Amino acid sequence: MRVGVLTGGGDCPGLNAVIRAVVRKGVSTYGYEFVGFRDGWRGPLENVTVPLGVDDVRGILPRGGTILKSSRTNPFKIEGGVERIKENLASNGVDALIAIGGEDTLGVATKLSDLGVNVVGVPKTIDNDLSGTDFTFGFDTAVNIAMEAIDRLHTTAESHHRVLVVEVMGRHAGWIALHAGLAGGANVVLIPEMPFDITKVCEYVEHRFQTNYSPILVVSEGAVPMEGGDMTVQSGELDAFGHVRLGGIGDRLAKEIEDRTGKEARAVVLGHVQRGGTPTAFDRWLATRFGLQAITAVHEKDYGTMVALRGTDIVRVPLIEGTGELKLVQPEQYAEAEVFFG
Amino acid sequence: MRVGVLTGGGDCPGLNAVIRAVVRKGVSTYGYEFVGFRDGWRGPLENVTVPLGVDDVRGILPRGGTILKSSRTNPFKIEGGVERIKENLASNGVDALIAIGGEDTLGVATKLSDLGVNVVGVPKTIDNDLSGTDFTFGFDTAVNIAMEAIDRLHTTAESHHRVLVVEVMGRHAGWIALHAGLAGGANVVLIPEMPFDITKVCEYVEHRFQTNYSPILVVSEGAVPMEGGDMTVQSGELDAFGHVRLGGIGDRLAKEIEDRTGKEARAVVLGHVQRGGTPTAFDRWLATRFGLQAITAVHEKDYGTMVALRGTDIVRVPLIEGTGELKLVQPEQYAEAEVFFG
Amino acid sequence: MRVGVLTGGGDCPGLNAVIRAVVRKGVSTYGYEFVGFRDGWRGPLENVTVPLGVDDVRGILPRGGTILKSSRTNPFKIEGGVERIKENLASNGVDALIAIGGEDTLGVATKLSDLGVNVVGVPKTIDNDLSGTDFTFGFDTAVNIAMEAIDRLHTTAESHHRVLVVEVMGRHAGWIALHAGLAGGANVVLIPEMPFDITKVCEYVEHRFQTNYSPILVVSEGAVPMEGGDMTVQSGELDAFGHVRLGGIGDRLAKEIEDRTGKEARAVVLGHVQRGGTPTAFDRWLATRFGLQAITAVHEKDYGTMVALRGTDIVRVPLIEGTGELKLVQPEQYAEAEVFFG
Amino acid sequence: MRVGVLTGGGDCPGLNAVIRAVVRKGVSTYGYEFVGFRDGWRGPLENVTVPLGVDDVRGILPRGGTILKSSRTNPFKIEGGVERIKENLASNGVDALIAIGGEDTLGVATKLSDLGVNVVGVPKTIDNDLSGTDFTFGFDTAVNIAMEAIDRLHTTAESHHRVLVVEVMGRHAGWIALHAGLAGGANVVLIPEMPFDITKVCEYVEHRFQTNYSPILVVSEGAVPMEGGDMTVQSGELDAFGHVRLGGIGDRLAKEIEDRTGKEARAVVLGHVQRGGTPTAFDRWLATRFGLQAITAVHEKDYGTMVALRGTDIVRVPLIEGTGELKLVQPEQYAEAEVFFG
Repeated sequence: MRVGVLTGGGDCPGLNAVIRAVVRKGVSTYGYEFVGFRDGWRGPLENVTVPLGVDDVRGILPRGGTILKSSRTNPFKIEGGVERIKENLASNGVDALIAIGGEDTLGVATKLSDLGVNVVGVPKTIDNDLSGTDFTFGFDTAVNIAMEAIDRLHTTAESHHRVLVVEVMGRHAGWIALHAGLAGGANVVLIPEMPFDITKVCEYVEHRFQTNYSPILVVSEGAVPMEGGDMTVQSGELDAFGHVRLGGIGDRLAKEIEDRTGKEARAVVLGHVQRGGTPTAFDRWLATRFGLQAITAVHEKDYGTMVALRGTDIVRVPLIEGTGELKLVQPEQYAEAEVFFG
Repeated sequence: MRVGVLTGGGDCPGLNAVIRAVVRKGVSTYGYEFVGFRDGWRGPLENVTVPLGVDDVRGILPRGGTILKSSRTNPFKIEGGVERIKENLASNGVDALIAIGGEDTLGVATKLSDLGVNVVGVPKTIDNDLSGTDFTFGFDTAVNIAMEAIDRLHTTAESHHRVLVVEVMGRHAGWIALHAGLAGGANVVLIPEMPFDITKVCEYVEHRFQTNYSPILVVSEGAVPMEGGDMTVQSGELDAFGHVRLGGIGDRLAKEIEDRTGKEARAVVLGHVQRGGTPTAFDRWLATRFGLQAITAVHEKDYGTMVALRGTDIVRVPLIEGTGELKLVQPEQYAEAEVFFG
Repeated sequence: MRVGVLTGGGDCPGLNAVIRAVVRKGVSTYGYEFVGFRDGWRGPLENVTVPLGVDDVRGILPRGGTILKSSRTNPFKIEGGVERIKENLASNGVDALIAIGGEDTLGVATKLSDLGVNVVGVPKTIDNDLSGTDFTFGFDTAVNIAMEAIDRLHTTAESHHRVLVVEVMGRHAGWIALHAGLAGGANVVLIPEMPFDITKVCEYVEHRFQTNYSPILVVSEGAVPMEGGDMTVQSGELDAFGHVRLGGIGDRLAKEIEDRTGKEARAVVLGHVQRGGTPTAFDRWLATRFGLQAITAVHEKDYGTMVALRGTDIVRVPLIEGTGELKLVQPEQYAEAEVFFG
Repeated sequence: MRVGVLTGGGDCPGLNAVIRAVVRKGVSTYGYEFVGFRDGWRGPLENVTVPLGVDDVRGILPRGGTILKSSRTNPFKIEGGVERIKENLASNGVDALIAIGGEDTLGVATKLSDLGVNVVGVPKTIDNDLSGTDFTFGFDTAVNIAMEAIDRLHTTAESHHRVLVVEVMGRHAGWIALHAGLAGGANVVLIPEMPFDITKVCEYVEHRFQTNYSPILVVSEGAVPMEGGDMTVQSGELDAFGHVRLGGIGDRLAKEIEDRTGKEARAVVLGHVQRGGTPTAFDRWLATRFGLQAITAVHEKDYGTMVALRGTDIVRVPLIEGTGELKLVQPEQYAEAEVFFG
């Protein structure tokens, strides 16, 4: 039995832990051989492989990133892509494929599964917005990094009568902002699910200063003002990937608050720092268990599934469950934490 | 409405986060007043109180320990203890009590509840061995500290052909050892639930050296050799609390391995370092949500309950559930991880 | 004997350690009393004082920021400012003043000293650009935070074929960029002292990709392109303090590299995260020893001096030495590290 | 030109940074080739070599330990050892040798230099007790780890009315204890240079409890009671290396304090955790600059020297300077910090 492994999408602390667990158990318990495919779906598409044995996964548990590297290649957008993948899997003698990735990567996995490829998925998103699993690995690491940044900013905020805005990841879902804001003791948390009222934000900022404390705001990169809530400060041009390059929401918000309240305001945009580096214990534990469960699923020929966390159990759910709807912050979840905000 | 709050047993990162959440929501949402009792059950027993308002809980979220201090006082072991507690609660005008603690503290809470005291429990144990909740706060912090120590030791083990033994907390349950060992990539994990065979441990150590790697062993403080598995190295005398003072299992194991295999072996006993300091994001999030739920339970007069985590939900269960049986590592949970050991 | 203490300018990890050392030794060794002045020179100017005894400095050693708060108030720019300061010092019975701050704060101290005020200075700048001392406290903390960010980014750079630009503090001097870049293994370090050639930077980026590695660039916030080296991407408008608000050099550089090379590029702007939070051991040791030496200088009536580090000794130098020229990165110091760059 | 490199003695964060700097500059600036010798002096003695090119040192800057591994082999204690080393250096075409290590390793280097071997030394000791250099790399990392442990213990000490003893490294010199104790805000620091009076230590402990604070003591592993100051608690047997195996000074001190004062006391023995793991920025900077200077010394044929830090300069001193006397904590250095103790 030969099993292929690939990682797709943005990197995420814990990817290497999944790969290591898959290979370690696959080799020692089931006697499998492995083929690593490079750069996500580009690997099986262009037949770019790397050796993947026990020695190749030694020492990678604490390392961020992915030894298989990653890309956003989508074979369904490439003429004859699916056929080439099938051919390359066959020519490498690959009987089953473990695909580790987010919405896009697992979306491709789902379609390939429907087309007869033996595939097991491992959900991955640092934003924690995949349905079907309580948590995804990488999220805990990101939240801790953001929380530590907020911890550090508290001392500056206290010493300087200054507004501090922390922009964290989360294009569609506010999980990182909500958890890091709650854990870091932020005063305002703005998330994509709930468009914010800039007037109210500024009122709160002024109120906070009157009680002699400097406010810290946490904002998801995907947070947006309410319709009609006009922000004067506009973002810069978009890049090819749709990201605002000069002046994301964090920078704009800081400037808008400064303009409206006259209080000095500064933004910290954590960016890629949140997704690199060594995973936390929780993420290593979760990623390792995901890997163990994925190779067991292969062994049991339970294809078309993805692994998931439910409570403290690792279970399997149909691949489609992980790629259907995004898991968003619900109003009652935001409301639960709101006692600390505003 | 006046609500009393106390913390009992060993300290644990997250206690202050619970206290803060209770007070913040109690004051702002319900308009309650609070009384802090010092040193666990000694507070209401001897009527030692501290002020507990919004200003008193400011800035404590990231701080380890407990602003209410703690003790192991058990009022049921003191003549007239229960009556004095009831009197002191009455004299302070306390309508309900939130007791934050482990098996012992919640055991007292359960009995007091049966005797008519309005009490809500918040489970606390760094060892994660309380039934009725998926996780307890403080555990994630302890596991991360232990994992970071193991991460550091890997480089020494690799540079020196030396056996390293890490003793972690866990007198009855091996959760910290299992999680930290899995997350840190330990080669052997010994837990109280599964008495170990010293001969096999030493065989593994020698095997590992033959393949040119130095082994790292993680051992719970409560791990014991199998019956008949005689360790030559004996522990030192016990102290008044039943703790071995000179030569716990970590030190003994290192010496025994050195004696048997001739390989240099060293122990690191992490001890109190695991339970102090700032909580991780997970523990702050969990402790904060426990606090919010506890004060809501008081508001709903849902006494005799304790709060608990199930998946990502905070629920309430009867107090007795948290104080019945210990939650131990099950054989299949150990077996899941065993592919990385031995 | 009554001694006043104030902190001016931007906050910096270690300020509280200085204050604590001054007060602890002043009280226990010399029997002095202390007056804390709030918000830098605004304190003695407007007579805003806070109590400053042994109890007030308890537990502040590990805390970032300053319990005395800070501002950029300059009494020489205020009508009658100097007289008011002298009056307020007198009315508080203050015999000597310890001023903790950077170029601006110590510049005021120097002038006041010339006008007969008994003042001792403690140099403070996170940028490490004050003459007369080997290092200033806060710098080591900032470098470690920047280095940890670079460590994290390495894994992302390796997994993604992506250029990462890290903007660190340093408006006039490149010390943080140089030390963090050296310690973090950056591939390019751009500092204010040496205007950069954007064409060469891009050539290096492309060269690096050809050898299959993704480059990490560290850039001081004050770095500028060479004259004639035209960057197409312009910065946004300046704020009242002369800071570029939308699009600092980090963001601009990332975009310019992307435009010129076609490689995806991202910037991380660490900002205030570098100056908050708990100080490193080095900074606590240095700040504490600065404080001890400052109060000894007061005891010896050695006014008009500031404390400084020379090797492992704490010495005193005339105040003017700390406020004369900025200490810049010298060409040979940059050249020493250059073997790792480009 | 071919240059040999070896690392001897205990591992220390920064060893890999030295190796990397030596190789990177040696190859790119001077066009040298390198031979790595394994396991300290055992490498050239038994002709155990490893490849050491630019690719071999890639990514090792942040990693603790040493890719060349280490041992305590002393060729002067082995019949014909020196001749074999000379032969093996010759057979490998090695023109010069860079020896990275402490007193023992550099002692061998000094003698070999006298016997005509072209050798340059790089001083290494985590204890910081080598003469001739302001600091050695690894020390700053160890002090930070110890300080973080003390930070964590403060919260437990405050919550529990409990004495906490932290045993840190330092067999002959108290540098780690002094710096970590000062940076961590310890209440008592006991070092090898100044035998302690157990009666006074216990008096202080009781005094501290009367003022309602729990004491934290930091003790070097090599600290000893004063002559005549009889400790009842005896240490356990010694191991082959002269280390006390069960019951070092930390454990003994905790028990003795508990016996004498009746207060609960606990010891934390940090052990190997202090010497493993990633180096701090200071240690990476220092180790890197040591490496750069060492290869420059080779290029200039300045043999029989070792590199050293003086202020912020890297200089060269005769090898004998680093291996003469130990650098101990001087009474005035201890006295400077003593205002915080007792």
